[in-house]
Amino acid sequence: MKATAIIGYHIAYLAKYGWERMSAYNVAVVGATGLVGQEFLKIAAQRRFPIKGLRLLASHRSVGRTLTIGEWAVEVEEATPRSFQGIDLVFFSATTEVSRELIPAAVKAGATCIDDSPAWRMEAGVPLVVPEVNADDLKEHRGIVSIPNCPTTPLCQTLWPVHKVNPLKRIVVDTYQSVSGTGAAAVEELTEQTRQVMDGNSAQSHVYPHQIAFNLLPQVDVFLGSGYTKEEWKIINETRKIIHEPELAISATCVRVPVYVGHSEAVHAEFAKAITPESFGDIVREAPGITVQDEPSVNLYPTPWSVAGRDDTYVGRIRQDASIGQTGIAFWLVSDNLRKGAALNAIQIAEELINRNLI
Amino acid sequence: MKATAIIGYHIAYLAKYGWERMSAYNVAVVGATGLVGQEFLKIAAQRRFPIKGLRLLASHRSVGRTLTIGEWAVEVEEATPRSFQGIDLVFFSATTEVSRELIPAAVKAGATCIDDSPAWRMEAGVPLVVPEVNADDLKEHRGIVSIPNCPTTPLCQTLWPVHKVNPLKRIVVDTYQSVSGTGAAAVEELTEQTRQVMDGNSAQSHVYPHQIAFNLLPQVDVFLGSGYTKEEWKIINETRKIIHEPELAISATCVRVPVYVGHSEAVHAEFAKAITPESFGDIVREAPGITVQDEPSVNLYPTPWSVAGRDDTYVGRIRQDASIGQTGIAFWLVSDNLRKGAALNAIQIAEELINRNLI
Repeated sequence: MKATAIIGYHIAYLAKYGWERMSAYNVAVVGATGLVGQEFLKIAAQRRFPIKGLRLLASHRSVGRTLTIGEWAVEVEEATPRSFQGIDLVFFSATTEVSRELIPAAVKAGATCIDDSPAWRMEAGVPLVVPEVNADDLKEHRGIVSIPNCPTTPLCQTLWPVHKVNPLKRIVVDTYQSVSGTGAAAVEELTEQTRQVMDGNSAQSHVYPHQIAFNLLPQVDVFLGSGYTKEEWKIINETRKIIHEPELAISATCVRVPVYVGHSEAVHAEFAKAITPESFGDIVREAPGITVQDEPSVNLYPTPWSVAGRDDTYVGRIRQDASIGQTGIAFWLVSDNLRKGAALNAIQIAEELINRNLI
Repeated sequence: MKATAIIGYHIAYLAKYGWERMSAYNVAVVGATGLVGQEFLKIAAQRRFPIKGLRLLASHRSVGRTLTIGEWAVEVEEATPRSFQGIDLVFFSATTEVSRELIPAAVKAGATCIDDSPAWRMEAGVPLVVPEVNADDLKEHRGIVSIPNCPTTPLCQTLWPVHKVNPLKRIVVDTYQSVSGTGAAAVEELTEQTRQVMDGNSAQSHVYPHQIAFNLLPQVDVFLGSGYTKEEWKIINETRKIIHEPELAISATCVRVPVYVGHSEAVHAEFAKAITPESFGDIVREAPGITVQDEPSVNLYPTPWSVAGRDDTYVGRIRQDASIGQTGIAFWLVSDNLRKGAALNAIQIAEELINRNLI
């Protein structure tokens, strides 16, 4: 960040929040020009996250672009291992490779890193956190906190309050994931292909292996030897780590759908003891960050179009799972994958780190 | 059908197939102008179904329209209880109310009815048939044969050959159903709404309770008191009837997706005995009407865009279900809901009725 930009932001910040907020932080965002980076800046401004200096980092292609946070404009710099001097907190939302390469440098420079990539999630000593579920794990951090994969976060957030009183035995989840989970190029691809199909032309695929417009791809991320995709194993392994149940039975099929924002999930959960849809709904309704939207009589349930842009995870279609009986609940959830699935969860983690004096 | 049309079709038929095919049938199609009715006419021509006379019936709104089957044009007449004199076989694909009202009249007139609606499916004495699974049930018919709901057919078709050697214990299925399952107005609505959204306008919903373009609706058909939709109970009850397992544990979440043609399903099946993905794949590959398309190393799996217009049910993503272990298989299937899910299945039933002298 250029000196003038730092001073400008700083003065504007002080003018806005006053001197009493001087316990603010020097923050860097790696991947600032990406969909999640942009959302991070928007949410940080909305929540008045205590930033005193801001460094926006990206690949060399974006250097020189100017981004805004709240009312201030900041110029984008290239992310390098030397970008983190004097930085307290770094939010990473770039590629796995970038996180793998730059996070050790940032930690060495004394910064705490919150990482949106899968690079460090399963490492011992790296808390993988959904603040409503396992904020206590933050105290183990050694400079790196990972945020879960976007479909994992709302799943854990919804099931955790029930699991605390009635242990989970098994989860089957099939996802309906939006293209923004892949990034800006995939959003553009959906628009372009939609136009091509509407014009009667054949769709050109660059980001995905097959057409996504008016189509579905039962593939998110790459395939592993087991026949599962990496995305499916992320849901399985990350959920086990977050709720501290390393043996929990979970199966998932992850599917990409022609939706811009909002990941949806059809969930079938089996618990140790009997549970009614009413008591499940009551527990989830009381949980932080969840809105229950479940009125079949007026065709009310969450949809990605209605949930996009919202902070809460929305839960509906709560019913006894017909294949299990009294110990099973089927439900549907939708969450904004850019917000609770990524940027919002990251900022909530940062807020928890501050509240707990862990930064 | 006007006399000239009958004679014209008849002469053309004889010219095409020759006199030896005189064991042909007088066929009526109720709902001839609908998406499934149109597909029926197309497939009947492709398969050279032995039609000697054809009556195309629809609501009074379509009277006078001319439809083509193969090379011949037939005028649409209004469907009434008096439409079935001299007809051997009627294919119904209209509303539940039309099937409920007109099928008794058609049976009384001596016709055999194949019904695509849910009106008669669960009645005792009405076979509900997927020919590859339970063609033997046809011998019980008393003038009415029902075809299953579009997502039920490919599910039963895929699981049946495995169930015969290793009994099913439980099925969890989440669907991704295309708008053509709702009908022509829904197809138009997807196109219109897509255009509205692309133009930056808000989408107008007429057919569905919420926007379907770039969105998902976790609702197919109406809600029942249990919190399940009627569509979900159709999958449960119809599967139990078709495979003769009235107590089988099944759960389903049915979701409408912004896809034109092709219903997809993520399935998690538990069997009585251990089963490997390889043996599951081998059994299913040998089953009639199924194509296994499952090569993760080259990102090959069925998608609705690639399966639309095909007769087979396509199966991929076959793997051990991680939540069950050795007795569980997870997989993905796609079938053309207008063909195997409706019109093709109906024609295959008619062919079986003919082969078994049951008509």
